[in-house]
Amino acid sequence: MSSTDESVRADDRAHVFHSWSAQGLINPLPIAGAEGSYFWDYEGKRYLDFSSQLVNINIGHQHPRLVAAIQEQAAKLCTIQPAFANDKRGEAARLIAELAPGSLNQVFFTNGGAEANENAIRMARGHTGRHKVLSTYRSYHGSTAAAITATGDPRRWANEPAAVGVVHFWGPYPYRSPFYAQSPEQETQRALRHLRDTIVFEGPGTVAAVLIETVVGTNGILVPPPGYLAGVRAICDEFGIVFIADEVMAGFGRCGEWFAVDRWGVTPDLITFAKGVNSGYLPLGGVVISDEIAETFRERPFPGGLTYSGHPLACASAVASIEIFKEEGIIEHARALGDDVIAPGLAELAAKHPSVGEVRGLGVFWAIELVRDRSTKEPLVPFNASGAAAGPMNEVAAAAKERGLWPFTHFNRVHVVPPCTATADEVRQGLSILDEALDVADRYYTA
Amino acid sequence: MSSTDESVRADDRAHVFHSWSAQGLINPLPIAGAEGSYFWDYEGKRYLDFSSQLVNINIGHQHPRLVAAIQEQAAKLCTIQPAFANDKRGEAARLIAELAPGSLNQVFFTNGGAEANENAIRMARGHTGRHKVLSTYRSYHGSTAAAITATGDPRRWANEPAAVGVVHFWGPYPYRSPFYAQSPEQETQRALRHLRDTIVFEGPGTVAAVLIETVVGTNGILVPPPGYLAGVRAICDEFGIVFIADEVMAGFGRCGEWFAVDRWGVTPDLITFAKGVNSGYLPLGGVVISDEIAETFRERPFPGGLTYSGHPLACASAVASIEIFKEEGIIEHARALGDDVIAPGLAELAAKHPSVGEVRGLGVFWAIELVRDRSTKEPLVPFNASGAAAGPMNEVAAAAKERGLWPFTHFNRVHVVPPCTATADEVRQGLSILDEALDVADRYYTA
Repeated sequence: MSSTDESVRADDRAHVFHSWSAQGLINPLPIAGAEGSYFWDYEGKRYLDFSSQLVNINIGHQHPRLVAAIQEQAAKLCTIQPAFANDKRGEAARLIAELAPGSLNQVFFTNGGAEANENAIRMARGHTGRHKVLSTYRSYHGSTAAAITATGDPRRWANEPAAVGVVHFWGPYPYRSPFYAQSPEQETQRALRHLRDTIVFEGPGTVAAVLIETVVGTNGILVPPPGYLAGVRAICDEFGIVFIADEVMAGFGRCGEWFAVDRWGVTPDLITFAKGVNSGYLPLGGVVISDEIAETFRERPFPGGLTYSGHPLACASAVASIEIFKEEGIIEHARALGDDVIAPGLAELAAKHPSVGEVRGLGVFWAIELVRDRSTKEPLVPFNASGAAAGPMNEVAAAAKERGLWPFTHFNRVHVVPPCTATADEVRQGLSILDEALDVADRYYTA
Repeated sequence: MSSTDESVRADDRAHVFHSWSAQGLINPLPIAGAEGSYFWDYEGKRYLDFSSQLVNINIGHQHPRLVAAIQEQAAKLCTIQPAFANDKRGEAARLIAELAPGSLNQVFFTNGGAEANENAIRMARGHTGRHKVLSTYRSYHGSTAAAITATGDPRRWANEPAAVGVVHFWGPYPYRSPFYAQSPEQETQRALRHLRDTIVFEGPGTVAAVLIETVVGTNGILVPPPGYLAGVRAICDEFGIVFIADEVMAGFGRCGEWFAVDRWGVTPDLITFAKGVNSGYLPLGGVVISDEIAETFRERPFPGGLTYSGHPLACASAVASIEIFKEEGIIEHARALGDDVIAPGLAELAAKHPSVGEVRGLGVFWAIELVRDRSTKEPLVPFNASGAAAGPMNEVAAAAKERGLWPFTHFNRVHVVPPCTATADEVRQGLSILDEALDVADRYYTA
């Protein structure tokens, strides 16, 4: 029996409990299929995917070579437990380690980003013998207890108290500087002083890790200003603190780099990844580990694990995805899309639409920040708005969807996050739909 | 380039960071392939899998129909984000809800068991407005912060402090009764009084959940004595506490039932699952939710989620696995293996080997507890033994492996946990190898 819009809706509403939702207030759209930069519903309506789902389909939907690699490995060996060695597990680890900067040569595999951050925190604590983790406001690190506690957005609130030992500090955000900086350079300088002062007053001997998203994702696509990441590296070195870069969203092509830190030539001690590593075709995440931290667990057991660590089928999909990225030049393509298509395209939108307060980003990882007034920077909708208060953003999103574009919106922002494999024409087409949708935002402009 | 024992070992030792291990003290065996109840290494040595890997390959290795279903769905749609409706996501949820007891009609999907328990705890807290979780010593619930804190075995120790709000109590264990009971019935009565007293002194108004493994898995295959689960249900009802049954290991055939609670006709409020739901062919877990708890999140957002919740490819593998279980009568087969082959086989081993202190279990979920003295019940190796202290158990395991059997051992126990699909002959063959391996244990018998 083949499925229909009605049958899928019926099963969904009767039995599927959805993430982050009031179950009675949602009406999930049944999706019938997907290919490349598009997906479609059961009525045949096609959407250009400017969300990459949850910013994870970096290779695009249903890439034929990646699908074939999954089918081939499924026929060979779907799974084997983590205490064994396995060809695809080892090959995926080697390929990732070869791409990672510095002496990050070991990989601990998980099922996703939350578990990656949980285990990175565990490694930092074991390595340093210290307990506290410093992470930023405006961040998301996952929804398991330690990961959601490290998170610096409202998704944490209803989960508190959860884990112990997290302290939040403020990261750089030049457009709305927490430090009243007048330039990106000053933002860097002041943000670093703030971080260092926070460490000094928390007690450097109590701080295991500084955990930051290399480029903040859902909470605003906040690109670190010049020198910030190098400064964090220096502060961590000064106090013997582990620098964890969360690249669950930023890594594997999203920033036009294999790892986002490559853009700034900085080497953290641990990098967490998921999403783009295999575009979520199977659940997979992990931690890339420096030799120094791996050495800590040479003769002392690492106190963490999971049944599906290094899952052969998931690892095979990562191997295939990395090979496809290399052979099809997807990293370079994503970088060029950012430089040659998205950056100039968003500059045009900013010039045309008064409601565009700022555009920022790199690669295929961009934000349009919408305001009611460019001088006061009052956001189009309030922080963490829901219901009627979120109305204007919902109208912008609806205008895009009507026109066949599926956008990613968060608070007062539209993120421009197409697959890394989107063509220049697809991106231009998407931007022209956004152009029309932003007329809706302009109506709320009050200055 | 096809892989070899050497190439797999080289990648593994250079780049794979393994679960729960001192990385320098392990020598992971490369596995070349697997089928049914067997897997083999690159030298062609075959092992009868009496571990079901990590007690998850319930359907056996590389079941051709399950592999075909994965290949078919991979060609159709690997993934779509959790806010959408999807045919396989809805169908998997419906099939699981249909199998679940009582009014457990909604399913929240995760990537594995740890996340399932994290989210069950989150639901219980949100539903009750209370914070504490009571779980048992001798338990394992996963390695993320809340799950490892709820865990009652030594894997928790190096992770403390992690999450807040967990209190450990003692569950029933007739062979080594924490309550000095003289019979299973007395064990039940005293264990229930202990749980109720603990709740009373913790403050019933502070307790969100009692979280127990329906049948304790890795920590001993502790089958609840008659009336225990019904008693827990009654105590939870008395105080408005959410009863969470962790069936990550016990569910989906392992106990010869769809859900282990079915054996006792008890309905918890939440059941967590993973492993057997799709035999780990892809990472998948979840929570089955009562209507009453789902209602709590009808108009109030559920504060948890993950990118791969309800992953279409993983859900398709669950749908196919459940259908295969039904059509091939795998639940009934597992129950019969337990009643007709394993129970009498282990009784023979117990009669023959003085080192066998007790055998216990159901379905394909059994433990052989090894002792140095049946009267004192001194375990063959001490609690949490490692290195030389664990020597006798390592020798037993090595004797089994030499003879082509891959056993599951934990502390002073050998668990008999073959796939649910193992044939009676395979199980008899495995038991006869264990018979020889137990001669090694007998040498340490001192009474």
